[in-house]
Amino acid sequence: VANTEHGTGPTFVVACIQMEPRIGEKQSNLARSIERIEQAARQGASLVVLPELANTGYMFTDRREAFELAEPVPDGESTRTWIDVAARLGIYVVAGIAERDGDRLFNSAVVIGPKGYVGTFRKLHLWNDENTCFEPGDKGVPVFDTELGRIAVAICYDGWFPEVYRLAAAKGADIICVPTNWVPMPGQVAGGMAMANMLAIAAAHSNGVVIACADRVGTERGQEFIGQSLIVDSDGWLKAGPASAQREEILFAECDVGRIRSSRRINAFNHKLRDRRTDVYDPMLGSGETPASV
Amino acid sequence: VANTEHGTGPTFVVACIQMEPRIGEKQSNLARSIERIEQAARQGASLVVLPELANTGYMFTDRREAFELAEPVPDGESTRTWIDVAARLGIYVVAGIAERDGDRLFNSAVVIGPKGYVGTFRKLHLWNDENTCFEPGDKGVPVFDTELGRIAVAICYDGWFPEVYRLAAAKGADIICVPTNWVPMPGQVAGGMAMANMLAIAAAHSNGVVIACADRVGTERGQEFIGQSLIVDSDGWLKAGPASAQREEILFAECDVGRIRSSRRINAFNHKLRDRRTDVYDPMLGSGETPASV
Repeated sequence: VANTEHGTGPTFVVACIQMEPRIGEKQSNLARSIERIEQAARQGASLVVLPELANTGYMFTDRREAFELAEPVPDGESTRTWIDVAARLGIYVVAGIAERDGDRLFNSAVVIGPKGYVGTFRKLHLWNDENTCFEPGDKGVPVFDTELGRIAVAICYDGWFPEVYRLAAAKGADIICVPTNWVPMPGQVAGGMAMANMLAIAAAHSNGVVIACADRVGTERGQEFIGQSLIVDSDGWLKAGPASAQREEILFAECDVGRIRSSRRINAFNHKLRDRRTDVYDPMLGSGETPASV
Repeated sequence: VANTEHGTGPTFVVACIQMEPRIGEKQSNLARSIERIEQAARQGASLVVLPELANTGYMFTDRREAFELAEPVPDGESTRTWIDVAARLGIYVVAGIAERDGDRLFNSAVVIGPKGYVGTFRKLHLWNDENTCFEPGDKGVPVFDTELGRIAVAICYDGWFPEVYRLAAAKGADIICVPTNWVPMPGQVAGGMAMANMLAIAAAHSNGVVIACADRVGTERGQEFIGQSLIVDSDGWLKAGPASAQREEILFAECDVGRIRSSRRINAFNHKLRDRRTDVYDPMLGSGETPASV
């Protein structure tokens, strides 16, 4: 999959699919995701990122509706369908899905490769009344070692916690895929960059990782989503996007794993990850002093 | 100091002094810092932030030069001078200083109040060949409980480590003062926002704290500094700045501690600090798995 055959070193193209899933219309969402994945692969992508809850939509009326739409992973229909397309096209897919595991529901993302199912990330930080549908993720921050490089995942509100990106980077992630359903943040200036975009930029720069965010668009049961998907380079500058706020589109960017890893060495003295003062962070982020009233 | 007498609640004005210290010209730097502090106080500031190494300049030829310029804290001349002006004006001052403690040097910031010396922060993450002059900070991330609110400090490259802001916020900081000497980052687009600015924005938003960055300007022994001081609100949006890249100037912003603290509660389910998954972060940020090759 890596384009070593082109003599350019181990580079690959990542694509972020900005699309509009429709709540409850799983067959149609899945079919449209396959079309977009095929289009991205035709245009050279070896890794395709879909939005959060790409197969079901986001605004469940209640846990019962989420439960009915959720599927086991990797044996449910949606994951099997994505496995088939990834194998057929010889690519990787990271896709947001409502996961059912026994009686438990998770807001998850499946990672799929040309040879099948790779693993699952379960959203760690639940936003708003997602808390009434889903369990908080119980798989930590896994990093998947693939032919393309080491892939980690964060979903939407997970990106508000710099710890998630840091953990992924400390475990060796080269690229962090972010299926997301960003909602408007108060205070956004018209025409200004979205706060979600700046969080991704800061995290990519601080950690020396590529961050590829695939957001949804559209308004669903009164909830607006903001689009503005983007792909940030490991130096923090934009590789692609931000995409528009309303339209479905696909972003593409070439990634060079060697360049990502070497970007962490800044000068003769500094390295973004090795300069961490774990001796200082440990006591607080570890067992945790009782914080002052916050 | 807090303007409770105005009936507006416990608000105060923070000022960031963007100035150009000259290497080795300690008397002149100190005198100019006093002028600027007086000006800021006349315009209503109760908390004034000066740049990193405001009394000495930054580009030491070697450790010997740094050693000669460094002073004990709080008994050295620079700190005593700032203590005097803070007492006279009834304000708080956070000022970058080359600190000598026995044979050890630190790139420090002193925190001073109307009643005298409050405490010291010692830069935790040393940038480039600062490593040959200074010891890495050994005081962790202190948070100083003052009449204005809880004040923490980070210096320049410390801001590249989201852990620093997180630790300060977890310990209850309301405002984080950042004396800094930002240098240009590769890849900056002309007219685009500085990466250092985006790191401050992301940290303020993620943690629900005000971040007040006072940068220097000018070119010193061949090293350019970028100005672009800024004050970021606890929702991540700009309160003041970014300042210009070249000119000395003063930024002002009003801070409301009640509003800062309540900004962390986002909705009925979410709180920026309480939503942290310490159960997930601990094992990695604690004793620390051996990371993959990074």
